Amino acid sequence: MKSKVKLYAIDTGRPIVVLNKEDATDLGVYVSGRVRLSHKNNTTIAIVDTTKSFVNSGEVGIFEEVRKRLDVKEGDRIKVDMATRPKSVELIKKKINGITLTDYEIRMIIQDIVDDMLSDTELSAFVTGSYIRGFNMDEVVSLTNSMVDTGQQIDFGTDIVDKHCVGGVVGNRTTMIVVPIIAAAGLTIPKTSSRSITSPAGTADTMEVLASVEFGIEDLKNIVNKINACIIWGGAVNLAPADDKIIHVERPLSIDPEGQVLASVMAKKKSVGSDYVLIDIPVGKGSKVSKMDDANAMAYKFIELGKRLNMSVECLITDGSSPIGAGVGPALEARDVLQVLDNDGPVDLMNKSLDLSGILLELSGKIKKGEGRKIAESILASGKAKEKMKEIIDAQDGDPEITPDDIKVGCNSVQITSGHRGRVRYINNRLISRIGKAAGAPRVKSAGMYLHVRVGDSVKVGDPLFTIYSENNGKIEDAVKLANELNPVQVGSVILHRIE
Amino acid sequence: MKSKVKLYAIDTGRPIVVLNKEDATDLGVYVSGRVRLSHKNNTTIAIVDTTKSFVNSGEVGIFEEVRKRLDVKEGDRIKVDMATRPKSVELIKKKINGITLTDYEIRMIIQDIVDDMLSDTELSAFVTGSYIRGFNMDEVVSLTNSMVDTGQQIDFGTDIVDKHCVGGVVGNRTTMIVVPIIAAAGLTIPKTSSRSITSPAGTADTMEVLASVEFGIEDLKNIVNKINACIIWGGAVNLAPADDKIIHVERPLSIDPEGQVLASVMAKKKSVGSDYVLIDIPVGKGSKVSKMDDANAMAYKFIELGKRLNMSVECLITDGSSPIGAGVGPALEARDVLQVLDNDGPVDLMNKSLDLSGILLELSGKIKKGEGRKIAESILASGKAKEKMKEIIDAQDGDPEITPDDIKVGCNSVQITSGHRGRVRYINNRLISRIGKAAGAPRVKSAGMYLHVRVGDSVKVGDPLFTIYSENNGKIEDAVKLANELNPVQVGSVILHRIE
Repeated sequence: MKSKVKLYAIDTGRPIVVLNKEDATDLGVYVSGRVRLSHKNNTTIAIVDTTKSFVNSGEVGIFEEVRKRLDVKEGDRIKVDMATRPKSVELIKKKINGITLTDYEIRMIIQDIVDDMLSDTELSAFVTGSYIRGFNMDEVVSLTNSMVDTGQQIDFGTDIVDKHCVGGVVGNRTTMIVVPIIAAAGLTIPKTSSRSITSPAGTADTMEVLASVEFGIEDLKNIVNKINACIIWGGAVNLAPADDKIIHVERPLSIDPEGQVLASVMAKKKSVGSDYVLIDIPVGKGSKVSKMDDANAMAYKFIELGKRLNMSVECLITDGSSPIGAGVGPALEARDVLQVLDNDGPVDLMNKSLDLSGILLELSGKIKKGEGRKIAESILASGKAKEKMKEIIDAQDGDPEITPDDIKVGCNSVQITSGHRGRVRYINNRLISRIGKAAGAPRVKSAGMYLHVRVGDSVKVGDPLFTIYSENNGKIEDAVKLANELNPVQVGSVILHRIE
Repeated sequence: MKSKVKLYAIDTGRPIVVLNKEDATDLGVYVSGRVRLSHKNNTTIAIVDTTKSFVNSGEVGIFEEVRKRLDVKEGDRIKVDMATRPKSVELIKKKINGITLTDYEIRMIIQDIVDDMLSDTELSAFVTGSYIRGFNMDEVVSLTNSMVDTGQQIDFGTDIVDKHCVGGVVGNRTTMIVVPIIAAAGLTIPKTSSRSITSPAGTADTMEVLASVEFGIEDLKNIVNKINACIIWGGAVNLAPADDKIIHVERPLSIDPEGQVLASVMAKKKSVGSDYVLIDIPVGKGSKVSKMDDANAMAYKFIELGKRLNMSVECLITDGSSPIGAGVGPALEARDVLQVLDNDGPVDLMNKSLDLSGILLELSGKIKKGEGRKIAESILASGKAKEKMKEIIDAQDGDPEITPDDIKVGCNSVQITSGHRGRVRYINNRLISRIGKAAGAPRVKSAGMYLHVRVGDSVKVGDPLFTIYSENNGKIEDAVKLANELNPVQVGSVILHRIE
């Protein structure tokens, strides 16, 4: 079939064409089916949407993604044929039917995901089927390797150390302290981090307060070759791109097949050639992993997967029941980090960062067992970590001389005080997150919260619990309203449930 | 957030808006998340797609569906807020986690499906989860009832009989013979049929050769009240609309959870108030149901579901290993039907139709057991069935005087002959389907095939096996090429598998 191009100036990041229903019937394709489009020497496969109007019979509606691939103009006549369903759809059905997939089959699926050959419907079926049926360790190894192979990879020609946190804890910006300590010890740590998904700040958002974080793979190589470290956003580097595409459908469903989580983390590490990886698994009510048993099981799987991929992996199960650090939101968390690097700031953040650094130093074999924490402390205390952080900020186009006081926080602030007297029993990560986001974080860097108390602190009526910061009067009102509603810092009461 | 409307003249049948990525982050929504849009007194929920370009920050890209709901013009400023995920997404996760859903929970899901509140990602997760976890009979009853309740329903105030075929057999146009026989016997049979999904013709496509088939619910009522029968396309009547929306995601995956198939069939029957339902389950290699055990299990479930819904259901497991009738494609199948109604035409089609009619007459209680087939034969032989068909054609705006010879078949034809001598062992439904579609059916009514042989017939080298018809030279070439490649009529060989 030859059809006339009708362009729609819209970029949804996926190859979609719109056909008139009659033409689709003629071609024998249905919504979410596929057509092969050809124009001059360009050919591409696109996923079909249909319409009864606007795109007439004889026309083909083309979005930006397909326009670029085919290099067509409005009114061009292009060839449209039915394309067969990719083999990977049958393989997804195999997984749905509970059959273990071979390495070759998993590679085919991952390749089609990377090439945008699967529709949301098919991708969702893959994620749902994988979630229910699970992956065995062989499959997880194949998933990881195929995610690595379908993306860019770097070989620094030296031992690489890395860390990862499974997430779910507010604040917890240990990466920005661990990386300079480890790099100051002479190890190479090319850290890629994520932006916030559901929290008021991810490491990439926080680092962006101090420096740029969006670099391509060549910049990453140059920076790390020069100063043996970086703290950049993983999204701009094409490492394990299948993972991002899978997360795109996992997020609306909020299901993440465990095998997929393992592969996702380890593929990013493998892509930069990591040899020694420390994984922080925070556990507790309100964190991502709430049960100790689940955390243990996950840890053993990470270690096993590491072995299969030739990486030394160590997991730390940490207390994830409360926030780590005092700041919430990019600017306030960045301020915590700079203070800790100045040997000041929140003690819990400093301590956790030193523990992680010490263990990572030992894991790398550079420092012998039992000495790591002491070495990490001396690197921090000596100012060497601060010096390394300045190098990193400088290499990432930031101002290395920035001080904690230079960081601008929201000009409007409201202090929330305690209505009770007693000890702080619990600070709920999820509720704090919601309030921080209501204040405008992570989009508005200066928005967020400052926690004045820790679990275990004694407070009197009227003592400050936390302060909310925002540039925007409306947002601060919303956040304060939410704070009063949600009561994220529990004082006094030891009642856990009330059963009536 | 207030955003400026940017209209996209495209109708995909689902409420989609496009936001700039930055605005989406601001609102805290991701791709496939939801926003609430308000303009004057209109409010609607839409599913979010994001873009980095074309739709700028401060703008909202609106497709036809949302434009109609909100009644907005280009440049209007509308309110855009984050909308929470509908409760039904949590319920879908429950099903994915293997938990049985309550009647109330299933109703919530079905209501959200009908209201287009679920994205393809979520709907696919529902279908995949249901397929893997299955539905128990209570759940199937809830599914059926909620599909009925969320669509239009008709009460004819009299006993209603109906039939359904699970499908998979080429030709097999029994409905167009059974309906006039049953109606001529004085029973009421408001038959809604489907168009082809993967075959060269559905009943609705074939009936359309003789009369119109697209009627709304009021027309359906009027026709049936007047002549106690109709044969129309179910797609134009708003019966159990949830079903169509679910099929929309099942088709690309080609998985259909059994509970969903049961509910789908029975909801359409329940919606027109059916009391007596005959279900034809063709079984055999190349048909939809290939194993006898599966057919039996399905039959018992249909009967049980019927009981729970207050319908008398009988199932017939029929030989589905070969086509029924000689014609393939709308015109050629319609010609078979008219010939049978004239007491001529393919004997297998006539016989199967008489069997089904007889059993349906007995099931309704109108004719006593053992007499049905005889009565059906006499109605056909007497010309009463033909007279009733003329009434139906007339009521559906067709020419009641049409004869088999009036039906136009493709002006180009190619006869395919046997290369072997022997008995016809097997005629493969799926391969015949592919060839019929290659010839242009069902879109081109006159395209298709005519089968000159039946399984068991003796043929010599050069005897005609089938003729391919088409208007279009290119299509007939494609079809002939495919026929020579696929060899859908197997002559002589008794070899089933060759194991090397």
